[in-house]
Amino acid sequence: MNPDLAQERRRATFDPEQVTSLLYRGPENVRKRRYLQNAAIQDQVLRGSKPWAFQSRIEQYETALQMYIYMMNKLDEMGVTDPLERMYYQEAGAPHYYNPMALHTGMFIPSIEKQGTKEQKERWLPMARSLQLIGTYAQTEMGHGTFIRGLETTATYDPSSQEFVLNSPTVTSMKFWPGGLGKTSNCCLVMAQLITHGKKRGIHLFFVQIRDLKTHRHMPGVESGDIGPKFGFNSNDNGYLKLSNVRIPRENMLMRYSKVLEDGTYVPPTNQRIGYGTMVFVRAHIVTNSARGLSKACVIAIRYSAVRRQTEVSPGGPEAQIIDYQTQQYKLFPLLATAYAMYFTGRYAEDYYEQIASEIEAGNLESLNQLHAVCAGLKAFSTWACTAGIETCRLCCGGHGYSHASGIPKLYTYYTPGCTYEGENNVMMLQVARFLMKIYPDIKRGGPIHEFVQYLGADLTQKSCMTEEVALGCLLKAFQHRAARLLSDAAARIENLVRSGKSRQEAWDASTVALTWAAKAYCHTFVVRTFSQIVSDAAVDKSTKDVLTALCKLYAIDGIIENLGEFIEDGFFSPHQVSFLKNKLADLLAEIRPNAVALVDAFDYPDKTLDSCLGRYDGQVYPALYEYAKNSPFNEQEVLDSYHKFIKPAQTEQSQRAPMARL
Amino acid sequence: MNPDLAQERRRATFDPEQVTSLLYRGPENVRKRRYLQNAAIQDQVLRGSKPWAFQSRIEQYETALQMYIYMMNKLDEMGVTDPLERMYYQEAGAPHYYNPMALHTGMFIPSIEKQGTKEQKERWLPMARSLQLIGTYAQTEMGHGTFIRGLETTATYDPSSQEFVLNSPTVTSMKFWPGGLGKTSNCCLVMAQLITHGKKRGIHLFFVQIRDLKTHRHMPGVESGDIGPKFGFNSNDNGYLKLSNVRIPRENMLMRYSKVLEDGTYVPPTNQRIGYGTMVFVRAHIVTNSARGLSKACVIAIRYSAVRRQTEVSPGGPEAQIIDYQTQQYKLFPLLATAYAMYFTGRYAEDYYEQIASEIEAGNLESLNQLHAVCAGLKAFSTWACTAGIETCRLCCGGHGYSHASGIPKLYTYYTPGCTYEGENNVMMLQVARFLMKIYPDIKRGGPIHEFVQYLGADLTQKSCMTEEVALGCLLKAFQHRAARLLSDAAARIENLVRSGKSRQEAWDASTVALTWAAKAYCHTFVVRTFSQIVSDAAVDKSTKDVLTALCKLYAIDGIIENLGEFIEDGFFSPHQVSFLKNKLADLLAEIRPNAVALVDAFDYPDKTLDSCLGRYDGQVYPALYEYAKNSPFNEQEVLDSYHKFIKPAQTEQSQRAPMARL
Repeated sequence: MNPDLAQERRRATFDPEQVTSLLYRGPENVRKRRYLQNAAIQDQVLRGSKPWAFQSRIEQYETALQMYIYMMNKLDEMGVTDPLERMYYQEAGAPHYYNPMALHTGMFIPSIEKQGTKEQKERWLPMARSLQLIGTYAQTEMGHGTFIRGLETTATYDPSSQEFVLNSPTVTSMKFWPGGLGKTSNCCLVMAQLITHGKKRGIHLFFVQIRDLKTHRHMPGVESGDIGPKFGFNSNDNGYLKLSNVRIPRENMLMRYSKVLEDGTYVPPTNQRIGYGTMVFVRAHIVTNSARGLSKACVIAIRYSAVRRQTEVSPGGPEAQIIDYQTQQYKLFPLLATAYAMYFTGRYAEDYYEQIASEIEAGNLESLNQLHAVCAGLKAFSTWACTAGIETCRLCCGGHGYSHASGIPKLYTYYTPGCTYEGENNVMMLQVARFLMKIYPDIKRGGPIHEFVQYLGADLTQKSCMTEEVALGCLLKAFQHRAARLLSDAAARIENLVRSGKSRQEAWDASTVALTWAAKAYCHTFVVRTFSQIVSDAAVDKSTKDVLTALCKLYAIDGIIENLGEFIEDGFFSPHQVSFLKNKLADLLAEIRPNAVALVDAFDYPDKTLDSCLGRYDGQVYPALYEYAKNSPFNEQEVLDSYHKFIKPAQTEQSQRAPMARL
Repeated sequence: MNPDLAQERRRATFDPEQVTSLLYRGPENVRKRRYLQNAAIQDQVLRGSKPWAFQSRIEQYETALQMYIYMMNKLDEMGVTDPLERMYYQEAGAPHYYNPMALHTGMFIPSIEKQGTKEQKERWLPMARSLQLIGTYAQTEMGHGTFIRGLETTATYDPSSQEFVLNSPTVTSMKFWPGGLGKTSNCCLVMAQLITHGKKRGIHLFFVQIRDLKTHRHMPGVESGDIGPKFGFNSNDNGYLKLSNVRIPRENMLMRYSKVLEDGTYVPPTNQRIGYGTMVFVRAHIVTNSARGLSKACVIAIRYSAVRRQTEVSPGGPEAQIIDYQTQQYKLFPLLATAYAMYFTGRYAEDYYEQIASEIEAGNLESLNQLHAVCAGLKAFSTWACTAGIETCRLCCGGHGYSHASGIPKLYTYYTPGCTYEGENNVMMLQVARFLMKIYPDIKRGGPIHEFVQYLGADLTQKSCMTEEVALGCLLKAFQHRAARLLSDAAARIENLVRSGKSRQEAWDASTVALTWAAKAYCHTFVVRTFSQIVSDAAVDKSTKDVLTALCKLYAIDGIIENLGEFIEDGFFSPHQVSFLKNKLADLLAEIRPNAVALVDAFDYPDKTLDSCLGRYDGQVYPALYEYAKNSPFNEQEVLDSYHKFIKPAQTEQSQRAPMARL
């Protein structure tokens, strides 16, 4: 054990186990999580592979496929059915490989379950669960992402044969990006424009077989493949799909909600938003997932910062642990606080979803708007914050952060797509803004509105109650005030533009920057509120609660300092109050310092999950880096073939020439 | 030609050629640049390779080695000796490969030229120029980066044999990271602690042969290798080096400035900072280089944003070009302005270096402090801004930005190390702060100080002169005021802490966040000043000057809005003045909109240099993406071997089991 890390752990003022328990919902769940992680870590088969970064892309894909199939079987044998528990096992078993069948289990099967008829479920689900069918969810096209209504793939009903004819009429209409579509899947759910009786009926889901179930070769009219290497996710065969007059029986349209009858009569769903549930569910989970990414990066960067020593503080004296530098603390500790904030917020969003989900399932869509706005906003807010935070953690590790030995580049490339998939973040923020502007008249006249948004109607002339103590309550009020003011500003801007002669649409379009500011402030407030609430409700001892409260305050104060203009341009804070905040910020960094390592330990990630030379629990960073380097595939030969192929001939050629200046 | 792009170019209100000429220092240089780029693009040998992302790491390394050796010979044949001109050729010839011999030409040879004696130059340079010697610069160790005095490698002089004995006494003392050290180089300049007569004499450079010149096998006592795969730079064999009692003759210490005599007597240099010149030179060039990275990302993102259409503006109407969305403009146009700002600033820093360099060479080090602070600060400021900007550009391209087909991930991984190498950015900022605090007493009492820093002594009670016009002069004054105030705040904080009983060092350590704010504000002001000066001096026609002025104003206003708190917490701007700025920001986005494509065209990057499906000059984005996907190595087989190896057996096994729920 590195002595610096050992001392950090001795110096902590609280019991990390209590925090772990709070994060993972109680000691029983922590126990289960550890049991599953250990089972994966100790499994001989899963242990075998060399570091992912030493593998070619095709090796990464094969390793991922093999491991995930193996883990599916193991989990089935163990009788583990809970998705979160399965994830814990998989995260420890194959931390750096994305499952090529992730959409099979995560989207294909659930969509059939939710949107298929009884007959369809009976027909496809047993085959899907036994992997006879390996499916994916083909929505995104080369030319269309978030704007789903713009999808160009067509499914035209032919009553004479009672079939749909599927086509990709343009280059841009090709399906592009779906995970596992390129090489792994033999079928998929295709999102397409339904056409019956010559009329467009909107977007629907169709079950399409794309490869032969016995030979895995393409079905007639199907062209598909891998879309090529990407920033990350290279163990996945994100694919493209071009359909040319592919015929499928009428029974292959998912018909739980809308139907096409034998004669081509279209029966629309009773409610257009019936399919929103899954989308909202996925977004709620992205919040927790983002927290997972950022927290791993924090573990690595904070442990490494306690081990790394650089620059003598006094001439000839010992070099300081870099975690003792205020600039390093100012980068890392607010991110640590963000990781906690997002964990708690994600959990809250998931609980809120569960609460509303049963109402939705029963056809009661009243709360859907509120839930939809919250999840869209938090998805965007958390992915932006967490992915930018991962990069900051990487940069805090200096040069070694750039090596794949650190594990952080992989975290970044793995989590940054969260800003884009499942609803592009800027679009999400404008959806939040649209929701807020829609209820704004109700807010202004004090109508009956949800507690989440009540504060938006508060008196904007109020000043902050902040004192030198910097109470959490005053911090939260500051966020509420800023959100209310920015919303009011955006609304005023739109009204002004309308008064100056622009149409409402034009006014909206010329105000999207201001609207985005308002939406972000709303989400930020939501996170501060949730964090402070969960901390205040937490059943932990006093020393633990003190530490969590310090983190929560740091999160809030840092959020204010980083966006200071928005909090002070109307004079809400006096200059004096701002100085309270800045002093408190410096104090909190010093206060959190002795608990920083224990706070990342509390995330309870086994080394295998982090897969990082820098983030090791034992702090043996440098021997690990040396070992990693020695094993680099480049070092299998003392002299590479390229020496004989390129360098040697160049030397011979050059020695016969006059030496010249070079760049 | 994509019709949207064609129309963008028709709509431009200025002549991009004038801007190109301004960027590259006149029409004659533009002509040369194009000539060299075309020569590289049309070269049949350089054309041959498949996309870099389709290659394994070893293939990337081999391709890079082969291409750069080929290009060296070609450039020699053409008689091109100017480093910038050679770079233009290489950038077009091998845009996505980092030269494994970059440090040979960029650091090894120049260091011998600058720090070697006449005899050493005669001995090594001809061999280095003819590639008999391939060298690198081995400074960074596993345990030490920016803090050079902490390096642990030792070179102990043995008078009995008149040799130095080099050792890596600890794991952390291993050289780690130097480019080309792993496999390519056969010698290097090792930075080591000189020990003579049992005393440490500080850090010096030693020429060490690490591989046999005929067989390329390791020399006795040398262990070296590649450090393994990284986030980027994978065509380079960044290496490690462990020295165990490696003996080199006394003549192998670079002795132009300091010497070790035969008997071991140490003769120190007349000035310790004599070696700073190269470091400063490199940092000045990093500014321009960062601009190059960000400008390429802007070309890709802005052209793509003009081609990409998403979401109907009115129901059933055409979908809008995404560049028409205000939120997209608000992300991209300030970055476009930043790219220009950094180009001009980099050019200014290079010129300033040249101006001071001859003084330094002559031993006059008076201006070195000022130059050193400017270059350290601008290096950090530009790399932070440009690399974060590249990521924003990538995210602005939605999902496709994440594919290596976009070219942007590669740009990011290529430029982000600039934040770390050649002086870690946070350390750089604190060096700027140290310089500013050192001259602060002179500033306060109005002593004779350089024009760069004069404004820091201005009266802090002044208010902004800003009117609705938003004049450049008032914008610059705002930046000056903020920098002066933040410096004064940091100084006051330190004095307060000293008064409260802390030592000066403790007070400094507890104020580094505030000091960093001040240093950043100083650098920011420098950039705004340089940008506005170059635009106002530019010999271009009125329409061109108008466009550049708009960009410059946008850069400044965006800088204010993004850091608004710092500009208003002391009441420098009134709320009214802030509203002028916000309105002007929105106006400028609309004003720049029709010229955005022409402004990126003006960077004059041939498609080959960008290597991006999204950034093509002709805008044929989608067919290019399709082509890229079809050529993915995964698609060479319709059915991958892994199907037979893993999927098929799993299906057979599963069909014999009861189907179970899965994640």
